[in-house]
Amino acid sequence: MEGRKVTLKDLAVKAGLSVNTISRALKDKEDIAASTRQMIKDLAKEMGYVGNALAGSLRSGLTRTIAVIVSDVANPHFGIMVKEIEKSARKHLYTIFVINTEDDYEMEERAIYTAIGKNVDAIIICPSQRGAENIRFLQKNGVPFVLIGRRFKDEPEFDYVICDDEKGGYLATKHLLDNGHKRVLFLNGPIRISSAQERLEGYKKAHEEAGLQVHEELIIEVGATAGDTRSVVKQLIEQQAEFTGIFAFNDVIAWEAAYVLSKNGYRVPDDYSVIGFDNIQSRIFIPFQLSSVSNSKGKMSKRAVDIVLHKINHPESTRKFNEIIDTKLVLRESTK
Amino acid sequence: MEGRKVTLKDLAVKAGLSVNTISRALKDKEDIAASTRQMIKDLAKEMGYVGNALAGSLRSGLTRTIAVIVSDVANPHFGIMVKEIEKSARKHLYTIFVINTEDDYEMEERAIYTAIGKNVDAIIICPSQRGAENIRFLQKNGVPFVLIGRRFKDEPEFDYVICDDEKGGYLATKHLLDNGHKRVLFLNGPIRISSAQERLEGYKKAHEEAGLQVHEELIIEVGATAGDTRSVVKQLIEQQAEFTGIFAFNDVIAWEAAYVLSKNGYRVPDDYSVIGFDNIQSRIFIPFQLSSVSNSKGKMSKRAVDIVLHKINHPESTRKFNEIIDTKLVLRESTK
Repeated sequence: MEGRKVTLKDLAVKAGLSVNTISRALKDKEDIAASTRQMIKDLAKEMGYVGNALAGSLRSGLTRTIAVIVSDVANPHFGIMVKEIEKSARKHLYTIFVINTEDDYEMEERAIYTAIGKNVDAIIICPSQRGAENIRFLQKNGVPFVLIGRRFKDEPEFDYVICDDEKGGYLATKHLLDNGHKRVLFLNGPIRISSAQERLEGYKKAHEEAGLQVHEELIIEVGATAGDTRSVVKQLIEQQAEFTGIFAFNDVIAWEAAYVLSKNGYRVPDDYSVIGFDNIQSRIFIPFQLSSVSNSKGKMSKRAVDIVLHKINHPESTRKFNEIIDTKLVLRESTK
Repeated sequence: MEGRKVTLKDLAVKAGLSVNTISRALKDKEDIAASTRQMIKDLAKEMGYVGNALAGSLRSGLTRTIAVIVSDVANPHFGIMVKEIEKSARKHLYTIFVINTEDDYEMEERAIYTAIGKNVDAIIICPSQRGAENIRFLQKNGVPFVLIGRRFKDEPEFDYVICDDEKGGYLATKHLLDNGHKRVLFLNGPIRISSAQERLEGYKKAHEEAGLQVHEELIIEVGATAGDTRSVVKQLIEQQAEFTGIFAFNDVIAWEAAYVLSKNGYRVPDDYSVIGFDNIQSRIFIPFQLSSVSNSKGKMSKRAVDIVLHKINHPESTRKFNEIIDTKLVLRESTK
């Protein structure tokens, strides 16, 4: 009966029983004979009836939904994260909303309003960091939330789970410097976001430790989305900019850089060593063996769910969550 | 005030007005002075108050939510689809739930129950096709739905939007045959799913048209998820199986096949030509130029949203939606 959902009343009419009897039978109330309960359950299945969780949620005050707000679920980095969050939430009988912000501040604000308006029990958000106001609004509203992947250093009261971005940036850069690359191009993400700032700190720290100068002209911000990197790398090649190693803010940027290099007749790693961040290759086998920094997306996602569940289930808790998941180097064939 | 959401009552206490006045002001009722309305709206923003859409939804009967049920949002194919669905749904003020099924039948059943229990207005589902019972249940329940990417040929009453899989399979195979590859390995997806069946029909049709025999031993099913392809291709290489072209059910499988080939010292396209399906390269620049079949995921996703919106808004409509989006060849450097 497409066009209208099967109701308790439909079941009652079909079974020739009262709506009350049907409802009590489906709830397994013992005042209804076991055989009748079974008959009614079979009928419900046959007729395609599903109880309304929403009614129950209004009683308990919980909707058992979590909103996941990320910049772009089509980016494999976020796709993997959302998958892991959903899997983990599902184990606790939670369902997730997914809303993309394109890292746009207004879209982020609308996403937050939408999520709260949907009465979600919590929000897991990778903030655009075009400002802190949207997150401050979340804080004021009182809905439990945790930041994932990015943090506000000036707002320590915002709970977060991130990876050790500084260490990741340090390890990647050190690997290239150790291999004799004296000039390492850093294709960084937008510097407003904490992961870009902290990976840059790691980049600088590795130089300092090696007693090497940081060349500011080799630190370039590219957009966090696909497409932006091409023109930047193409231009650098045309200008014959001096560098032999590339550390990219993420694997998508690293792939794109390597793509442009190969399009222009250069070989990786013979002409240029390239290292990324995110270790997407651990999930998708790509015939380009990219060295990368692993940030344990599975672990980070699971922790984000655990944190919001703690906050949902212990509204009186004042525990703060400032968690940093370890990062490590995964070397493949794109660096030497 | 984390731990407890800001309510109308909090606003009322703060403003020294009744809950009723606050509520009417936020709804812009004209019996409240304009200046008071503005004051109350400012206060709501300052205090982090967001109205409850759920209460409204119980009145209208609509929750303005759509459930999107796919096998794995971490697969870029589905990641892109979910992104496009969310974008399109958002334009119509709809929010989406995302539930992964891992193409497991029981998980699919639970996903459907969860979605209906959440009172979604509609469901967009890429069915596991391990059986039709789950979708038949959806049909009986009456919730508007549309299948995306896969269809049940024996159940024409299930609305669907798919791509022209047969044509895609035909074009990819014909391209390899035209280039002189007489033995084309087809790394197909699970044959229970319609897209695998229909791409296989295209593969056969291209052989027939070219007057070439189909070698059944070159048609191999691999799992639709990452990892399964490696052992299959490795074994074929070790057995020195005879083929020079590879048509893969999707880009992820094609990448993985090319990865194994390169790991074993073979070059693409010099030793083997490889073509995929999904054209993910159009979204992510990967330094491996994979030829592929484009299936216009953006268009398919948008249509799916339009179809369910039509069904939500016209519950009396008996219009059937059996839509097939065109596929086309996108040639890059992995085939010759």
